[in-house]
Amino acid sequence: MDYSGTTVALDGFGVEGGFDVLEAGIREAAADGVKLRVFGPRGQIDLGGLDGVTLIDTSESISNEDDPVSSVRSRPDASIVRAVADAAAGDSQGVVSLGSTGAAMAAATFGLKRSRGVKRPALAAQVPAPGKAVLFLDVGANLDVRAQHLVQFAWLGMAFSSAVLGVDRPKVGLLSVGEEAGKGREAVVEANGILSRSPEIDFIGNVEGGDIPASTADVVVTDGFTGNVVIKTMEGTAKAVGNAISGAARKNPISAIGGLMMKSALGGLRKDLHPDTTGGAILLGLRKVAVVGHGSSGPEGVANAIRVAARAAAVDSSGRTEEMLHRVGANRGAIDSGRDS
Amino acid sequence: MDYSGTTVALDGFGVEGGFDVLEAGIREAAADGVKLRVFGPRGQIDLGGLDGVTLIDTSESISNEDDPVSSVRSRPDASIVRAVADAAAGDSQGVVSLGSTGAAMAAATFGLKRSRGVKRPALAAQVPAPGKAVLFLDVGANLDVRAQHLVQFAWLGMAFSSAVLGVDRPKVGLLSVGEEAGKGREAVVEANGILSRSPEIDFIGNVEGGDIPASTADVVVTDGFTGNVVIKTMEGTAKAVGNAISGAARKNPISAIGGLMMKSALGGLRKDLHPDTTGGAILLGLRKVAVVGHGSSGPEGVANAIRVAARAAAVDSSGRTEEMLHRVGANRGAIDSGRDS
Repeated sequence: MDYSGTTVALDGFGVEGGFDVLEAGIREAAADGVKLRVFGPRGQIDLGGLDGVTLIDTSESISNEDDPVSSVRSRPDASIVRAVADAAAGDSQGVVSLGSTGAAMAAATFGLKRSRGVKRPALAAQVPAPGKAVLFLDVGANLDVRAQHLVQFAWLGMAFSSAVLGVDRPKVGLLSVGEEAGKGREAVVEANGILSRSPEIDFIGNVEGGDIPASTADVVVTDGFTGNVVIKTMEGTAKAVGNAISGAARKNPISAIGGLMMKSALGGLRKDLHPDTTGGAILLGLRKVAVVGHGSSGPEGVANAIRVAARAAAVDSSGRTEEMLHRVGANRGAIDSGRDS
Repeated sequence: MDYSGTTVALDGFGVEGGFDVLEAGIREAAADGVKLRVFGPRGQIDLGGLDGVTLIDTSESISNEDDPVSSVRSRPDASIVRAVADAAAGDSQGVVSLGSTGAAMAAATFGLKRSRGVKRPALAAQVPAPGKAVLFLDVGANLDVRAQHLVQFAWLGMAFSSAVLGVDRPKVGLLSVGEEAGKGREAVVEANGILSRSPEIDFIGNVEGGDIPASTADVVVTDGFTGNVVIKTMEGTAKAVGNAISGAARKNPISAIGGLMMKSALGGLRKDLHPDTTGGAILLGLRKVAVVGHGSSGPEGVANAIRVAARAAAVDSSGRTEEMLHRVGANRGAIDSGRDS
């Protein structure tokens, strides 16, 4: 991947492992050629000798405990607000934060322009599934949605999956309570109808809860309430199953040895499920992409979040998204009046 | 548990393992003193010598492939329709099916009276969690709901958990996207407000997706769309994690031995997650309880589904539910006008 000419604004606060982890991640991303503008405390971050990386001294930050909306509005000097302003001013082409998702979402929504034609930006997560990651949206930006919003999420997800994640003709599914087109909430049934009549999109119809970890689709679309609950349910269930396995292994010495023997083999699984590999949540539908990695990320997770934003900027993800939305907008009249082209 | 005087109507079709499995389950339940009226084919089910068990010869059934609503309406001789009619006529006090959930739900909703004060019956599932089962509703009966429906689900779940499952003062949580009372869809925020002002209910506030498998609450309430998606997501995630572990164990001989050694210890976990132990989905809010077990159930699963229905009938679950709803109804005026008692 050629990132030349791509600059990413990075919120320098929020990594739970501390500034050492952040620095290591920055070094990894910079080695790939990503240019960075880092908003963090000069005394604690040392980026000496890194080509294309600038530190802009910033001492204020917004934490997970702060109310996102009011904090973003009242604290223009906070690192995430400055990073967003940097991208808005054109000094960078994407924003990355490892801090509060709520604060990053609020700052980006207020500070960055929406792509032409986008009604509601959506938050997407990459869910680890066998052999690939499933792009799942919305996971929390829009709690009450109408059919037209679900349709836009499908377009936003498809555009990002193909332009940034490199999936050729992504298969898009709509989350519902049954595979049949008539199953689901009113808004979901209506969205299914519209998507079924959109020849530009590889719509595979409704998918169910169990289809997300089974990676039936490349992109799965839902409202932000259901999406948020589902993604936390997946994390909680994986954790509960993992705990039950550890508990079972501790119960008797024979199985404890068995557990130890399996440990190395399970390393691969753990890597699949670890936040480091997924690159975090991505706010789609804005002129610049905003990525929020997990605060628990290691260096690799920090670097991956930066890479996702850099790739989005390098391939002009939002330009391509606008173009796709424009195309479907032009077709809307034909679709609604029942004609095929 | 004393089931004397309690008769359950059983749909004799739908067990994937065949009539032998059904028979074995019937024998287990009958040994506990449950009386049964079984609607199945005389030539294939042999219940000779079982006290209190009557076979009513029935050759027609509704399968998972049939459309539930139209099949139930057009086929009065189908086993599930006859079993429901039996309970409606007072010849039995509860209905159990191991067949199509949709057909059982449709037959019960059409054929059984709603409890006084209940607007919408809800489908509840028992989710296996560490040390207990969490009662989770609605998992598919009501896709679009208002705040008042969520509040009723809380009351239905609480009544069933305390009266039938024997939980002393069950802790009730409301599923949302954050713990704070103001987080969530409009209907959820409104329901949180009403439940917070209901002193008769042990409301612990909003819970998140990850809290269900962590068994933070005894009863978790949501709309039928989110609930259905969540329960299928949990099943799918547990399966994906299990598959990943088996895959890891197969990868190299050392970890394969480890996997074998862990197998007996994991037996307990498998039992926790197996449908046999949860007793199936329960339709709440009707004058007679209707229970739908998994078609994949073994004898123990069949017996448990029967036991849940018998226990509900023996303790007059719907009478207690009506009483609770009547109490909250009487308080509604006081709550709405801001007074505390």
